[in-house]
Amino acid sequence: MEESTLKATASAPAKIILCGEHAVVFYEPAIVMAIDKQAYVTVEARSDQAIYIKSRNLGVSGRYERGRFKLGVGGGAAKSKLDPIRIAVEKTLELAEKKMGLNVLVDSDIPVAAGLGSSAAVAVATIAATGKLLETSLSKEKICSIAYEAEKTVHEQPSGIDNYISTYGGITIFRRGEKFTPLEARANVILVIGNTKVSRSTGLLVRHVSELKEAYPKVINPIIKAIGRISVSAANALQDGELKRLGELMNVNHGLLYALGVSSEELDQLVYAARRAGALGAKLTGAGGGGCMIALVTPDKLEKVRRAIRRAGGIAMLAKKNDRGVQVWEEK
Amino acid sequence: MEESTLKATASAPAKIILCGEHAVVFYEPAIVMAIDKQAYVTVEARSDQAIYIKSRNLGVSGRYERGRFKLGVGGGAAKSKLDPIRIAVEKTLELAEKKMGLNVLVDSDIPVAAGLGSSAAVAVATIAATGKLLETSLSKEKICSIAYEAEKTVHEQPSGIDNYISTYGGITIFRRGEKFTPLEARANVILVIGNTKVSRSTGLLVRHVSELKEAYPKVINPIIKAIGRISVSAANALQDGELKRLGELMNVNHGLLYALGVSSEELDQLVYAARRAGALGAKLTGAGGGGCMIALVTPDKLEKVRRAIRRAGGIAMLAKKNDRGVQVWEEK
Repeated sequence: MEESTLKATASAPAKIILCGEHAVVFYEPAIVMAIDKQAYVTVEARSDQAIYIKSRNLGVSGRYERGRFKLGVGGGAAKSKLDPIRIAVEKTLELAEKKMGLNVLVDSDIPVAAGLGSSAAVAVATIAATGKLLETSLSKEKICSIAYEAEKTVHEQPSGIDNYISTYGGITIFRRGEKFTPLEARANVILVIGNTKVSRSTGLLVRHVSELKEAYPKVINPIIKAIGRISVSAANALQDGELKRLGELMNVNHGLLYALGVSSEELDQLVYAARRAGALGAKLTGAGGGGCMIALVTPDKLEKVRRAIRRAGGIAMLAKKNDRGVQVWEEK
Repeated sequence: MEESTLKATASAPAKIILCGEHAVVFYEPAIVMAIDKQAYVTVEARSDQAIYIKSRNLGVSGRYERGRFKLGVGGGAAKSKLDPIRIAVEKTLELAEKKMGLNVLVDSDIPVAAGLGSSAAVAVATIAATGKLLETSLSKEKICSIAYEAEKTVHEQPSGIDNYISTYGGITIFRRGEKFTPLEARANVILVIGNTKVSRSTGLLVRHVSELKEAYPKVINPIIKAIGRISVSAANALQDGELKRLGELMNVNHGLLYALGVSSEELDQLVYAARRAGALGAKLTGAGGGGCMIALVTPDKLEKVRRAIRRAGGIAMLAKKNDRGVQVWEEK
């Protein structure tokens, strides 16, 4: 990083889908929760007009200057990884009607490409930090909508839930095409996230479910409907602080995702391991086919479940609810 | 066995549930198929009034004389294992209005207590062989109804499908409280049955599903409905000879049973192993929680799937459709 006097930093949380994934494509509700894994972005002014971005966790860096990209480290994929961050920066500069060079340093404890909304968290934190540095007062609403623009460059037709939950935190019930509704959860949701380390393609999995639905509509439609009803029941369980019910509903939800063909042997190994170790419930989270599962635990079972997931071959990570969403502060 | 001149032997097939188990309790259809694993029962006249029964595969024997049981081999459980066979014999004697002593030798290649209808097959073969020996012409209908009486002494509220399919063979679509409908299957159904060797209680598993349904009716009702629709679609696939569709439906069915909480880690290991080895579809069969799974295979994948199930810790057994049902012949 080059020398500078003023710096602003922002943090924004990752998310997990508690229930309802895949069914959400067909306008059923899903429940999404911000977790205490965060992306951190520090922005500082440069003396020139370049935008220099370094992502510590992705191990890439590069400089954008007069419309051209100059690779720092990270090889051929660096540009496509850094582009969404550049877009977040540029959109914020545009809004503030300012032109200036910036150094952007990204760090994150969110696993990438694991369905945890890493790209949205980075976008939200980038926008908030840039806004702060520019002394432009950005409302959460504004941050959220700029982040959505950046998300469009990463995901095909993003639902908007990732940038929303990274901005506002908390738990949200979400139905495609409708306004997001924050959920007042009396329950203290403690999760162990188990990462199978198996990569998957969200697009392929979504297509698989669509094809299955087309081939067997009479069978698959009630399954989709049942998943939507799980989200509604889970929302009630969260509001009433009934964790046992929430766990049972998560187990049923996992079975239905299994029925839709989006679980995998690795996911089920972690799910069974977590249940055996005393989790209240366990399910895959996100697109499935690999990626992550979540186990709902009570504090006394936390360590046991974490160890069980590790022993079954997963990377285990504790996650609690994040209620604050994006945070921003000046450095120095 | 004591000396005798006349002997009659009968064979009757085991069954597997192709799809619809558990949902059938709630009046949804299920599909049941007779398989080429059979119970064999040989009956011969005795010079006294005793009924002597020896079950080779259960490893028990004993003699009933003037209302009292005298243990041969097999310890304390022998009587309860032999009682249903005695009842089948006595009910047949009653119908023929005859009184005589009999030796009954049972042999079977059906695994017991694995949800394959072993007790019904033994009852059907016992009745048919006894009828033949007594030179009483017993229609299949009659054999089936006497076997149902015997089944009542083994299972709490038997559905009647086990004795029906053991008597008639073939594939039947079955809905509780309705007449059984034989299915003309153009498909050549070849299965590998994988036995987890884990024992389970059908009663407990049925109760578990009932409780889940009571706790979450809005979620569980559409799942039950979806299982019923799988049976209807599977019946069409069988009639049209579309094995690929049948396999896909079996996979979805297994996921829904998993969602109802009646799968187990051991079952899923065999299910995944079979699918990886190229099975068209795989699911648990029967009550679940242990017991058996079935994999639908094409002839070229048969050996591979069989080996995969064995390597995953199961006992693998080939099963084809039995179309003949009960068969009876005189010996010697």
